[in-house]
Amino acid sequence: MPVVNIQITRDGATAAQKSAVIAGVTDVLVKVLNKDPATTFVIIQEVDTDDWGHAGKSVTQLRADAEGKR
Amino acid sequence: MPVVNIQITRDGATAAQKSAVIAGVTDVLVKVLNKDPATTFVIIQEVDTDDWGHAGKSVTQLRADAEGKR
Amino acid sequence: MPVVNIQITRDGATAAQKSAVIAGVTDVLVKVLNKDPATTFVIIQEVDTDDWGHAGKSVTQLRADAEGKR
Amino acid sequence: MPVVNIQITRDGATAAQKSAVIAGVTDVLVKVLNKDPATTFVIIQEVDTDDWGHAGKSVTQLRADAEGKR
Amino acid sequence: MPVVNIQITRDGATAAQKSAVIAGVTDVLVKVLNKDPATTFVIIQEVDTDDWGHAGKSVTQLRADAEGKR
Amino acid sequence: MPVVNIQITRDGATAAQKSAVIAGVTDVLVKVLNKDPATTFVIIQEVDTDDWGHAGKSVTQLRADAEGKR
Repeated sequence: MPVVNIQITRDGATAAQKSAVIAGVTDVLVKVLNKDPATTFVIIQEVDTDDWGHAGKSVTQLRADAEGKR
Repeated sequence: MPVVNIQITRDGATAAQKSAVIAGVTDVLVKVLNKDPATTFVIIQEVDTDDWGHAGKSVTQLRADAEGKR
Repeated sequence: MPVVNIQITRDGATAAQKSAVIAGVTDVLVKVLNKDPATTFVIIQEVDTDDWGHAGKSVTQLRADAEGKR
Repeated sequence: MPVVNIQITRDGATAAQKSAVIAGVTDVLVKVLNKDPATTFVIIQEVDTDDWGHAGKSVTQLRADAEGKR
Repeated sequence: MPVVNIQITRDGATAAQKSAVIAGVTDVLVKVLNKDPATTFVIIQEVDTDDWGHAGKSVTQLRADAEGKR
Repeated sequence: MPVVNIQITRDGATAAQKSAVIAGVTDVLVKVLNKDPATTFVIIQEVDTDDWGHAGKSVTQLRADAEGKR
């Protein structure tokens, strides 16, 4: 009975993509660990780029920096 | 000093219901484990049905499937 | 289909106490939010006192300080 | 840059199985959401059966009940 | 490669403040634990005051009670 | 009243280092967001290198690969 929490930046993932992630991740747990899909939960959390930090900066900042360098 | 994170699907839980969950869960920890309520946090996260997967499908899909079967 | 994660300091909670926490918290979600217990998970994580900080100090330190003051 | 936290009951998953879960889940995120594997983390947490509740009972209890019914 | 999840009540933290939190927390992990900032993630989750419980009441309630006592 | 969860690989962090992380992270939240340290929790979770995946491989594998290349 696994619980999977997936955190991604909010970048316009569609409902279809989320469904594909849910199906794919569940499939991995069923095939590799023989888990029962009926008790497998996958929860996706989208995080605003202001709220996600990487290398000491927010993703918002990192993308603005990358824009500025072009 | 417990921290409780509760993830539920976003289905219209009211502020009064959330308060009852907070009161009830805190009470369990105080009574069973003798925890101090002053350092007990309960955090509720509502998750969109597109973002919650069960049995390899999103809850949105599962509910649409259940509708279709009626 | 709620998922509840409970973090507590590792202080010798027994299996019987953990079972009572699981039963009690599940009961709150069933009664207040009408959730189905069959898809309600409660996960307890015990955290060493070296790994839990409160007010800028580890719980190990806080307890040693409290001992020292007696 | 996704972060995936996977909680499973502690049931003897091997290092090879864990590696297969990590590879498989990362692959899903790369293929479906075009994520960069270099910034994709997958963290597996094994949870003792005393600490995992389902339907108001610990998994330890549920398994003992199932044994008793045989 | 640390992952830091920070939960705070939603109280109007600005993007600049969030950036300062990300920078400061990353700096602590780099200086104290010698972690590589390139693989350090900091994720901030703002939680509505209805959804955050303390001492058995939601923060919304606690603040209303405090208002009433003035 | 922030709650901070820090996940790091299990690499021998000492109790003194953990205390320094707790003090440093709490300080950031107090200074930047004016949070009350008395209701600030910092929880450190050490994760075995078999259980932490990066770029589709466990950290155990990544380190063995890096050893092999020397």
